[in-house]
Amino acid sequence: MTRISFEEMKATIKQAFLNAGMSEEKADVCARIHTESSRDGVYSHGLNRVERYVDYIGRGWVDVDAVPTLEKNMGTMEIYNGNMGPGILNAIFAMDRATEIASQFGIGLVSLRNTTHWMRGGAFGWQAAEKGFVAICWTNTESCMPTWGAKSTSIGNNPFIMAVPRKEGHIVLDMAMSQYSYGKLSVTRLKNEKLPYAGGFDKEGQLTDDPGAIETSRRILPMGYWKGSGFAILLDLISALLSGGLTTAGIDKFDQGSCGSCCQVFIAIDPLKINTQEFIDNALAETIAQLKSSVPANENGEIFYPGEQSLKTRKLNMELGIPVDDSVWEKVKELAGLK
Amino acid sequence: MTRISFEEMKATIKQAFLNAGMSEEKADVCARIHTESSRDGVYSHGLNRVERYVDYIGRGWVDVDAVPTLEKNMGTMEIYNGNMGPGILNAIFAMDRATEIASQFGIGLVSLRNTTHWMRGGAFGWQAAEKGFVAICWTNTESCMPTWGAKSTSIGNNPFIMAVPRKEGHIVLDMAMSQYSYGKLSVTRLKNEKLPYAGGFDKEGQLTDDPGAIETSRRILPMGYWKGSGFAILLDLISALLSGGLTTAGIDKFDQGSCGSCCQVFIAIDPLKINTQEFIDNALAETIAQLKSSVPANENGEIFYPGEQSLKTRKLNMELGIPVDDSVWEKVKELAGLK
Repeated sequence: MTRISFEEMKATIKQAFLNAGMSEEKADVCARIHTESSRDGVYSHGLNRVERYVDYIGRGWVDVDAVPTLEKNMGTMEIYNGNMGPGILNAIFAMDRATEIASQFGIGLVSLRNTTHWMRGGAFGWQAAEKGFVAICWTNTESCMPTWGAKSTSIGNNPFIMAVPRKEGHIVLDMAMSQYSYGKLSVTRLKNEKLPYAGGFDKEGQLTDDPGAIETSRRILPMGYWKGSGFAILLDLISALLSGGLTTAGIDKFDQGSCGSCCQVFIAIDPLKINTQEFIDNALAETIAQLKSSVPANENGEIFYPGEQSLKTRKLNMELGIPVDDSVWEKVKELAGLK
Repeated sequence: MTRISFEEMKATIKQAFLNAGMSEEKADVCARIHTESSRDGVYSHGLNRVERYVDYIGRGWVDVDAVPTLEKNMGTMEIYNGNMGPGILNAIFAMDRATEIASQFGIGLVSLRNTTHWMRGGAFGWQAAEKGFVAICWTNTESCMPTWGAKSTSIGNNPFIMAVPRKEGHIVLDMAMSQYSYGKLSVTRLKNEKLPYAGGFDKEGQLTDDPGAIETSRRILPMGYWKGSGFAILLDLISALLSGGLTTAGIDKFDQGSCGSCCQVFIAIDPLKINTQEFIDNALAETIAQLKSSVPANENGEIFYPGEQSLKTRKLNMELGIPVDDSVWEKVKELAGLK
């Protein structure tokens, strides 16, 4: 397995984005986020997503020069048009605004319509937590999953993120509404393996852990069956109603790639406006202690809080380098003009 | 199957609550909510919960005279001490305040600490939707489920609700973090049936759809495996940090019944402060149309939006009467002094 240093990966991605027409500053931030995603083990939305992103820019599906414009200021709530600018930059801006508003009022909500793929949603949870804020954010997407009871695709996987800042390591949940991503299915199939648990229905309508059978049927499973299906629908509707933008059904019709003209919601809360640091520290410590003192299901099993494994992967990848798929890495180097 | 009219059920529950020491007005509201839960098909938290609730009052675990007191007013965010008052009344109050704040500012967040079991969380989503507000609310609970990777109980099932108002029927998601409740396990076991899908692990650590095996192991499954586990942890922490109250670990130590001194968060948003009614109607219509035009997984299968089946059950139960378990109904009549 090839491993690449953080700095080399970031510089290479940055050059690819510069070549695609991004400004120095924007390419730098986007390259950092893609590299951090790979660094934290979210390979699917890090280096692996660069080629597609450059393709979207080329097709005019992302306007590299666009910035969010304020549509409505309601004090603690601000609504922006993302103007089809880079999803990462729009989302960083929106979460930053949410934290600024929360600094003033305790809570801030920023919604974005008409934005583009934000890549790894967790990045914006970590961003807020780094600044000391509790955060909730989510996006809607094009449809990629059948709603419960259906076999044709009609709902998005609408990633949902919650973050709580903590000195010893932030507690961050970053989950899509499907039990597994299509990326996970293909990686598992290529290794000739089965999924850990059933991940969808086969063509005959039977639950299966065979990734290839699900890729064929396109009947990927919502997490928790009807629960993840319902959650996806509500996340979609609320993001559209809070931003005045497109629902999943609208994104499907708009048809400019994954998450083209999607809607996002960013909520930040300043926990120190409500409690003392001591109260917060105790609540977090008590909870982590309760989790960690659980009896592991398997001998020598370890119990992790949400976000802990990302930190472990981060540490390892910073020490050893970030693992890459050689063909993906060669392609990004090519986009950077380095071969 | 015995069916009881809404009015008879409500009057009987009300009398049981009056006998337990509740005031006329409070008993009326609590009886209405319990009856509405049964009416909508949420039998576990309607009539079936009355006996336990009266028991909690008798033990002093619920203070029937307590009302929420404001601890902090931050404009769009208000923090209340529930003073261990009736969970239903505290929650109705909190969601009402959230909608009042949202009427003024667009968004309102009310948190409650030191409150008691709110029964059916969905009730407060429907409440906000009836008034025309988008709503998000959740509660933490005592631990009742192993965190992912563990076999001992350490996390709550922390119900989470999202609601969107809609003329033709509100869209309401009301879900706990466990795939199935213990109530569902016991009902299924008593019918000698299997669960529709695996609902936990047996003592040997194998996934199983045998409800009795899960009741024995107490290894109930979080929805979506690690996803529901992580979601439960974040909902717990954020509710405690937003209200200054107890985490699940703290509720476990407090040990005054289910949800004794729990924390809750109520968020309301006025969608008409952001969009026209026409925009909202179109977004909802387009989404419902996309769901309804899906190809059903089973021949003659029907596809429902979240909340639709509650409405269907409501209509049926208002026509035919609300079905009751005879022994439960006799017990509540006894508490009402009617036998």
